[in-house]
Amino acid sequence: MSRPDWFPVDPWVISEVGFDTSRMEWAETIFALSNGHLGLRGNLEEGEPVGIPGTLLNSVFEFHPLPYAEAGYGYPESGQTVINLTNGKIIRLLVDDEPFDVRYGSLERHERRLDLRSGILDRDAVWRSPADQRLRLTTRRIVSLCQRSIAAIHYEIEALDDDARVVLQSELVANEVDGERRADDPRVATVLHAPLRPALHLSNERGAVLVHQVAHSGLRVAAAMDHEIDTDADLDCRIESEDDLARLTIATTLRAGQRLRLVKYLAYGWSSSRSIPAMRAQVEAALSGAIATGWDGLVDEQRRFLDEYWRVADVAVDGDDEIQQALRFGLFQVLQATTRAERRPIPSKGLTGDGYDGHTFWDTEAFVLPVTTLTDPCATADALRWRQSILPVARTRAAALGLRGAAFPWRTINGEECSGYWPAGTAAFHINAAVADSVLRYVDATDDRAFEEEVGVELLVETARLWASLGAHDAEGRFHIDGVTGPDEYSAVADDNTYTNLMARRNLLGAAEVAERYAAVAARLGVDAAEITAWRDASNVYVPYDHRLGVHPQAESFTRHALWDFEATRPDQYPLFGSFPYFDLYRRQVTKQADLVLALHLCDDAFDAEQKRRDFEYYEAITVRDSSLSATTQAVIAAEVGHLDLAFAYLAETCLVDLHDLNHNSGDGIHLAAAAGGWTAVVAGFGGLRHRDGRLSFAPRLPRALRRIRFGIHYRGRQIVVTMADGHATYELAGGAPIEISHHGDTFVLDERTRLPLPATPNLAPPRQPAGREPRREPR
Amino acid sequence: MSRPDWFPVDPWVISEVGFDTSRMEWAETIFALSNGHLGLRGNLEEGEPVGIPGTLLNSVFEFHPLPYAEAGYGYPESGQTVINLTNGKIIRLLVDDEPFDVRYGSLERHERRLDLRSGILDRDAVWRSPADQRLRLTTRRIVSLCQRSIAAIHYEIEALDDDARVVLQSELVANEVDGERRADDPRVATVLHAPLRPALHLSNERGAVLVHQVAHSGLRVAAAMDHEIDTDADLDCRIESEDDLARLTIATTLRAGQRLRLVKYLAYGWSSSRSIPAMRAQVEAALSGAIATGWDGLVDEQRRFLDEYWRVADVAVDGDDEIQQALRFGLFQVLQATTRAERRPIPSKGLTGDGYDGHTFWDTEAFVLPVTTLTDPCATADALRWRQSILPVARTRAAALGLRGAAFPWRTINGEECSGYWPAGTAAFHINAAVADSVLRYVDATDDRAFEEEVGVELLVETARLWASLGAHDAEGRFHIDGVTGPDEYSAVADDNTYTNLMARRNLLGAAEVAERYAAVAARLGVDAAEITAWRDASNVYVPYDHRLGVHPQAESFTRHALWDFEATRPDQYPLFGSFPYFDLYRRQVTKQADLVLALHLCDDAFDAEQKRRDFEYYEAITVRDSSLSATTQAVIAAEVGHLDLAFAYLAETCLVDLHDLNHNSGDGIHLAAAAGGWTAVVAGFGGLRHRDGRLSFAPRLPRALRRIRFGIHYRGRQIVVTMADGHATYELAGGAPIEISHHGDTFVLDERTRLPLPATPNLAPPRQPAGREPRREPR
Repeated sequence: MSRPDWFPVDPWVISEVGFDTSRMEWAETIFALSNGHLGLRGNLEEGEPVGIPGTLLNSVFEFHPLPYAEAGYGYPESGQTVINLTNGKIIRLLVDDEPFDVRYGSLERHERRLDLRSGILDRDAVWRSPADQRLRLTTRRIVSLCQRSIAAIHYEIEALDDDARVVLQSELVANEVDGERRADDPRVATVLHAPLRPALHLSNERGAVLVHQVAHSGLRVAAAMDHEIDTDADLDCRIESEDDLARLTIATTLRAGQRLRLVKYLAYGWSSSRSIPAMRAQVEAALSGAIATGWDGLVDEQRRFLDEYWRVADVAVDGDDEIQQALRFGLFQVLQATTRAERRPIPSKGLTGDGYDGHTFWDTEAFVLPVTTLTDPCATADALRWRQSILPVARTRAAALGLRGAAFPWRTINGEECSGYWPAGTAAFHINAAVADSVLRYVDATDDRAFEEEVGVELLVETARLWASLGAHDAEGRFHIDGVTGPDEYSAVADDNTYTNLMARRNLLGAAEVAERYAAVAARLGVDAAEITAWRDASNVYVPYDHRLGVHPQAESFTRHALWDFEATRPDQYPLFGSFPYFDLYRRQVTKQADLVLALHLCDDAFDAEQKRRDFEYYEAITVRDSSLSATTQAVIAAEVGHLDLAFAYLAETCLVDLHDLNHNSGDGIHLAAAAGGWTAVVAGFGGLRHRDGRLSFAPRLPRALRRIRFGIHYRGRQIVVTMADGHATYELAGGAPIEISHHGDTFVLDERTRLPLPATPNLAPPRQPAGREPRREPR
Repeated sequence: MSRPDWFPVDPWVISEVGFDTSRMEWAETIFALSNGHLGLRGNLEEGEPVGIPGTLLNSVFEFHPLPYAEAGYGYPESGQTVINLTNGKIIRLLVDDEPFDVRYGSLERHERRLDLRSGILDRDAVWRSPADQRLRLTTRRIVSLCQRSIAAIHYEIEALDDDARVVLQSELVANEVDGERRADDPRVATVLHAPLRPALHLSNERGAVLVHQVAHSGLRVAAAMDHEIDTDADLDCRIESEDDLARLTIATTLRAGQRLRLVKYLAYGWSSSRSIPAMRAQVEAALSGAIATGWDGLVDEQRRFLDEYWRVADVAVDGDDEIQQALRFGLFQVLQATTRAERRPIPSKGLTGDGYDGHTFWDTEAFVLPVTTLTDPCATADALRWRQSILPVARTRAAALGLRGAAFPWRTINGEECSGYWPAGTAAFHINAAVADSVLRYVDATDDRAFEEEVGVELLVETARLWASLGAHDAEGRFHIDGVTGPDEYSAVADDNTYTNLMARRNLLGAAEVAERYAAVAARLGVDAAEITAWRDASNVYVPYDHRLGVHPQAESFTRHALWDFEATRPDQYPLFGSFPYFDLYRRQVTKQADLVLALHLCDDAFDAEQKRRDFEYYEAITVRDSSLSATTQAVIAAEVGHLDLAFAYLAETCLVDLHDLNHNSGDGIHLAAAAGGWTAVVAGFGGLRHRDGRLSFAPRLPRALRRIRFGIHYRGRQIVVTMADGHATYELAGGAPIEISHHGDTFVLDERTRLPLPATPNLAPPRQPAGREPRREPR
């Protein structure tokens, strides 16, 4: 299947030409707008056709029971799922009694464009109605990055040939009928019907408010709209509201060439505690602010916001325009998922769809926050403050599991565990180390000591306590963490997962260090010297090693297990979890995603260069990448150990996962970790960036496919831009004081600009990979 | 809590004096009658009060969906549960307009007696109605061991003081309203309401037939009743039938001292394929046969059947009357669960209740069939023929799991897997070795070569194929079986479970041997020389050993894990699976039930005497016996290694589990494996019986608590009775030709009678056990 010509290559714009109902869900995801608080999928204004409707507010969810064929102690009984809220995107259009619907009449032109510099989704359509009336419709949609409650739609209709009787219905619709939903992936979101209970509806002049309460979670959601109308035609306007619907109706007759322009402002708010009048007031106030700013004002401030972001964060590559586009698309997704999330979780799909029920996993800390930490550090701080805010729940969970400290949930919206399969949920304790690692990385990158004291100490201490209670010393004093699941979901409940042990070590040592440094905070948390000593003792983790093969097993005994029979596995049997039982996957050497290789990246100080190469090549042969979390890490380590072509192929796979719909489920929402992974593959992979303990180092290497790479980061108040081209790396200090950095192990002080040669490109033989599982990229 | 005085000690009778509604369920289980085909719980004739109603037919079940919070490939989607069928036990009684109900009026006398020699349940009640009418009610209930479709109730009512207007309603009732059901144990049977769809009802003179179809499984069930009435009082009789009810009404006035006697005959049948008329004819024919035999005839043939059984199978002990009673009760339960099951599964609760949804597990092959093999060998052959009959399903299951041969279900009624938790279901492949072991034991004990050829070869071959495809050789050629669950359910999905590996070895070698011996059968099954060689190669299983501790880990790495903190575990936290998550249990050294110790018993040739003692004592310290399957095995090995007092304590626990309701769930049905385990503890434990490859050996040892033990077995056409008393063991040949046997390692030919001295009783220090988890026995 060749790639459809939907998203033509352009450095800054994602566009779709034409319209294909069979791929609607995918396009709705790609054209979703969000700011981390409010998300609108790219559903059409006229409401239908629709793939998966989506108006999402971060942390607004509904409970549902989690069923078990055989229950067990400590199983979560209640699940949470994100729900589709009051839809304010709707502006229906009736032309001479015919509803505008792209499936009927003829669509002479249809184009959508998402400009990554403006953050605005444009739509331009020319439609000939079944009654032969031609109209031009242009819309511009914005979800404001500056006013987090606000979205707006600039809507313009023009009669092209004849006078046209036109009726617009601009609506708020609650409890929309959901589209056809797929059920083949058990983790695709549970469908919930009519979860919103009406609490208030009102309308006045050209505006309206609907307030609802989510049936079981009890959360209140308010949505408000107001409108500006600009036309020289005569209008007949009417506003009305009922429980689940508010509607402004505009009827007019447009002469040929005459236009009707409508700006629809939307404001959203939610609360678990505020009253219905307060909710109403909140959205009406936000709406007033947006109207005061005006459409042009919203557009201008959005552009300024994005200009400032791209100034440093942009990644530019020469040599592959498609990768260029995908890298920026990925960064844009990271930005819009995180920048205004503000102490709320960052779901694995952002707010672009309801895949994985809208849950937040370890993906955020392990794959997304390392990017925001260097490109938009406040977003990281906010995300970690959310973790701090759910510590009470995480402490309760740890206690229920017989452990000390905090056990963060494997998947959640409100902080409570809602994983229904404990071997790949509860047992995946490594999520706690990822949270701790994010704290250490953020503090290292920002030197934000206030955060460290207020947030960092508590997170590090409570996660360290978990590890100390989870593991045990053997007769030789080595610390073992038994019966846990590492990143690779094709193994579970194993002893001494290398990644987990090494990450726990960092967590334990990090906690010990801050507990000593912030003694008063630590004392308030009940930490004493004996506990700190216990953490240091526990940091003597056992690291399994297979002397026969000369590689690190990803967990004890792993490399002794039988190899998966890749030769006998047909292409249609991937992803393997859809074709083989867990028991078969778990007992063999086959890894879904980077696990030991992730340790090579995140715990790089625990391995020497030769060991990294051996380990990487060993796991290349058994890694099938049935998870989109894998290619990023493989790109980074491939680049580090010298497989540069392969690293580039993994970069392509990770950053194209949604634009090429490589996993055939982009319709459920973007793969945020993979979107972030493009940046990581470039910056940590080809740029070789590592940072820890105030040391910032680079090891730039340019793959053959690219002539030039340029990227920038924020680090400790500096903005540093690195360009690799013409056999050299150029370091520029775009802001801040001079700083010592390292280039391929040689340190120098960067002050303005330094140009250093790149080392010769190595020429390693490509490693063996499972048949048919080489990195994917749809041919153009 | 002292033991209630419900089941007074008597060598042959289980009786209850008085009536306690709070313990009804327990008594209903204890007084359940069955023949392996038809089971009637000890519900009262008058219908209420009732704990758990129960009229069960082996293999009549209903499907129900198995839900999962997160689904996975290969998970069973459909469960099966035994259902309560048409109740023919009902004979309601109205006395002067008052329904007879033990909760009202006053119960001057109420006694139930189950005589293990007659197989008849007697009830004797004197009741004063609220209107002051005194009556005596005596009933006798039989489920025929000779006519498997037949039950009968001999019912007699006498007016004691005054003339009494009496109305009897003898009924068949379908879709009874179920009693209050507990839901605290997730494995207590799913309650299904009104699962029977009416297909036919008819009545004639004093009889009636109801035919129903089970809604989703489609099975048809027919129940018929007929009556004989004997009285000198004037009667008014009426018979009627409707969809879910057939009723014979008898109205009369009894003068003081006058009696009304009713014999109610019941016949049951079921089919998945036979038509409604055929079902009707079947039960009417069975009923005619029973009526021709008559009540006295049924009683007489039942007594002869049991006399013949007890003649050899009885276990007699002097020194503890309670144990004497419990041992016979246990054997009676084994007999009535198995003897007429006839190529149908033997559920873990027999037909005494719907616990575990009426499923059959490995319990049957591992704990029950070893007993029937030596006491009632035909029952073993029938049970294994059932396994053969479900081979097509087991082959399909193996294929679905990517394996060869057959994978028998962990829990089932109809042969399809319905375990909803794969780590303790699918992964417990050892059930297949238990089936194979049962074949080898049965053939050894009977020399039944026809069975071996027709049934044994196929079962051994298909299970051997499973093991060969499940494991893999390491670089040194040792065969590993990774990622499986052994008998201990507090561990799961481990590598190289010692028990599993050793049992797989026996299975593989057994298959190789019969495949060569029955070459034509093997060829028909597609076995070639290469496959036989592969089985022999695979039999080189790896057996883990901990050199540091000098013990066998129950699985690789097990003895390196942290110990469970028994000191910190409160008594109310047992069973541990109700208080701790699996992840915590799995990663520590704590065993729910004998696992490695079961290997010491069943694979005794793989361990020397000193190793057995070391291993036994090691596992004593960490075994909590949260499973009723454990004490039997601990008794056997305790006796073998010289802990005779401890062995006796485990004997007591295993055989008293239901009479003392030690697990507080006997109401759901008897613990059949534990019931069988009493025999095993005596015969394999104190008798030291082992048999394999035509060699029969004993190692009698008498515990201090008993003055004398006597037991008998069937072995290769002989009946051998062993008596231990006065420092000697006496072997008697009660039937059959002389045979060579071994006594404590010394062989001799038994011809008539041989008396040999018992060795001195060893005096080992008691092993350490988890605090509070010593063997249980309620104080009298």
